[in-house]
Amino acid sequence: MKPINDPSGVDRRVLLSTLALAPVLSAPLFSASALAQTPGEPLPSWNDTAPKQAILEFVRATTDQSRPTYVPPEERIAVFDQDGTLWVEHPMYTQVVYALERVPAVVAQQPELKDVEPFKTVLSGNREAMARLSMSELEKILAVTLTGMSVDEFNAEARKWLETARHPRWNRPYTELVYQPMLEVLRHMRDNGFKTYIVTGGGQDFVRIYAAKIYGILPEQVVGTAAGTKYGYGKDGKPFLTKEPKLLLNDNDAGKVEGIHLMIGRRPYVAFGNSTGDREMLEWTDAGNGARLMLLVLHDDDAREYAYGPAQGLPDSKVGTFTQALYDEAKQNGWMVISMKYDWKDVFPPDTVGRGTR
Amino acid sequence: MKPINDPSGVDRRVLLSTLALAPVLSAPLFSASALAQTPGEPLPSWNDTAPKQAILEFVRATTDQSRPTYVPPEERIAVFDQDGTLWVEHPMYTQVVYALERVPAVVAQQPELKDVEPFKTVLSGNREAMARLSMSELEKILAVTLTGMSVDEFNAEARKWLETARHPRWNRPYTELVYQPMLEVLRHMRDNGFKTYIVTGGGQDFVRIYAAKIYGILPEQVVGTAAGTKYGYGKDGKPFLTKEPKLLLNDNDAGKVEGIHLMIGRRPYVAFGNSTGDREMLEWTDAGNGARLMLLVLHDDDAREYAYGPAQGLPDSKVGTFTQALYDEAKQNGWMVISMKYDWKDVFPPDTVGRGTR
Repeated sequence: MKPINDPSGVDRRVLLSTLALAPVLSAPLFSASALAQTPGEPLPSWNDTAPKQAILEFVRATTDQSRPTYVPPEERIAVFDQDGTLWVEHPMYTQVVYALERVPAVVAQQPELKDVEPFKTVLSGNREAMARLSMSELEKILAVTLTGMSVDEFNAEARKWLETARHPRWNRPYTELVYQPMLEVLRHMRDNGFKTYIVTGGGQDFVRIYAAKIYGILPEQVVGTAAGTKYGYGKDGKPFLTKEPKLLLNDNDAGKVEGIHLMIGRRPYVAFGNSTGDREMLEWTDAGNGARLMLLVLHDDDAREYAYGPAQGLPDSKVGTFTQALYDEAKQNGWMVISMKYDWKDVFPPDTVGRGTR
Repeated sequence: MKPINDPSGVDRRVLLSTLALAPVLSAPLFSASALAQTPGEPLPSWNDTAPKQAILEFVRATTDQSRPTYVPPEERIAVFDQDGTLWVEHPMYTQVVYALERVPAVVAQQPELKDVEPFKTVLSGNREAMARLSMSELEKILAVTLTGMSVDEFNAEARKWLETARHPRWNRPYTELVYQPMLEVLRHMRDNGFKTYIVTGGGQDFVRIYAAKIYGILPEQVVGTAAGTKYGYGKDGKPFLTKEPKLLLNDNDAGKVEGIHLMIGRRPYVAFGNSTGDREMLEWTDAGNGARLMLLVLHDDDAREYAYGPAQGLPDSKVGTFTQALYDEAKQNGWMVISMKYDWKDVFPPDTVGRGTR
């Protein structure tokens, strides 16, 4: 296999025709193969280091009825952060890229925004200035670009964008830049009766559009930052839901635990994350009785993906910050830190990503 | 079988010992038997009238791959209102009874409430005055009695109460006053690959305490009126969630559709309700493509349960109102109206309710 981070190794025609034959992002959301039993050894893309051993041992400990750590199937809940844990989050969260790219269309509808910040900066196309936008400015952009339309319109627009948008480094659809080792963990957990949930700071509606296809995770198992909706009737008398610029759930930090309580109603047995935004979710999981498994993905592989921290002296990052304090808390509590560089044999799926295996 | 509405027909000792042997309300929430395959003909407690035929035909139409109305298993979502649809809601919602009974304990903790309305009226014990409390007064009572504690404390208190509280008419635990025909519908739907959800105006946390045991519906499949929670740390450093007096989701009327979008993310194929609070949920279900099934339970059986409307000239009711306008909308749209009196052979499970079958 050619190195995946070499764009020249990807046959664009094969990718595009695959996409045309099996549209990743149109309904139905779900492919039967996504939940199929895995043949052979589990976790083949993991090196035989501590994290792989911990995952395999945890699954044995919770599914073997003769062991005191046995967990009944209906209580097997596993939660996964998305950005940086299941797929690439650098150099910018996919949803933020989408929101920024929607600004011109929104300003065409609402010309009064043209000279108002932060929209003015986005329209300028000045990438350096855009990179300096604060979190509250980005939130303003997200609110204006991703609400005020019906849920159906939102879904159709976002699907269309995801079909054509490409990651700047690999020039591949964002939906293909998922971590092969994590797809194997999702599969192994489900093969052993765990319900797999995404618990993401990203927009719940946005992630639901692709989560079934690329992870085998149905919409009701995606917990994310959620805006309110409003029920109304169209001119034809048919009801529809409008996305409102009203934050219902900020699914970051402690909000992840609150979101888990709201949407799942029980404490998970497994939690995977990669940043300070996942800290409380891992603490909450860890505080349960019996066997619990907590892991954090450390991005220390600049060659195959990215390296950022600032844990362990890695470069600081505005996206998916993994601080030294989080690293220390992990070590102190016995949470596994996964080194992408040393613990993952492969980072991405083979070139024919998406066919058959998900 | 003796008539179920004759309290003398119930052997209290059998009931109590059954409860002692298989505690309905303690962890684990889930009994394996609740999801077991049903032997024999489905829906035995239904008379062979139009609603039963409609349910059976709908399930055939959506599960037979050769028919154009086929629905893939992962899209099979069925939603059920709870109060008045799955269990008895008269003369007062169970959760409201619970909140009222908690008032003395709460006032003992917060004596300043003693002379403040509506708490003063509740403490007076004057049942007529209590029956006149307005919805906003009841909401004040619910907020004060059911929040401000940790989620674990709430669950423990509510479980304890449900074990001893009895319905005034049948002198049986509320959790036994479930409708046998609806248990059979839940089972039949699940046997055919439908995911069954409760979508209730009642409190999400409250309903989750018993839904797995009595309906086979796990916490993550209970959508209800939800208060926010707040993450914090105890003196021992352990994290816990506190229930806040902050309404996140008012899961009534249009709020049911908004709750379905938030928690399930897809349009249901089946919706059961019994009151104006379910109208939008049925409209939303009906507005989808292909085969959809909408039903409303009409309480017209004063002998075996209750009769209230005011649809079809039944007595008006403050609890679970089924207006003539809703009745007319149902007829116009082809929604089924289930007559408890004529369509249900039995209303409640046999006396040994709770054993083996749920």
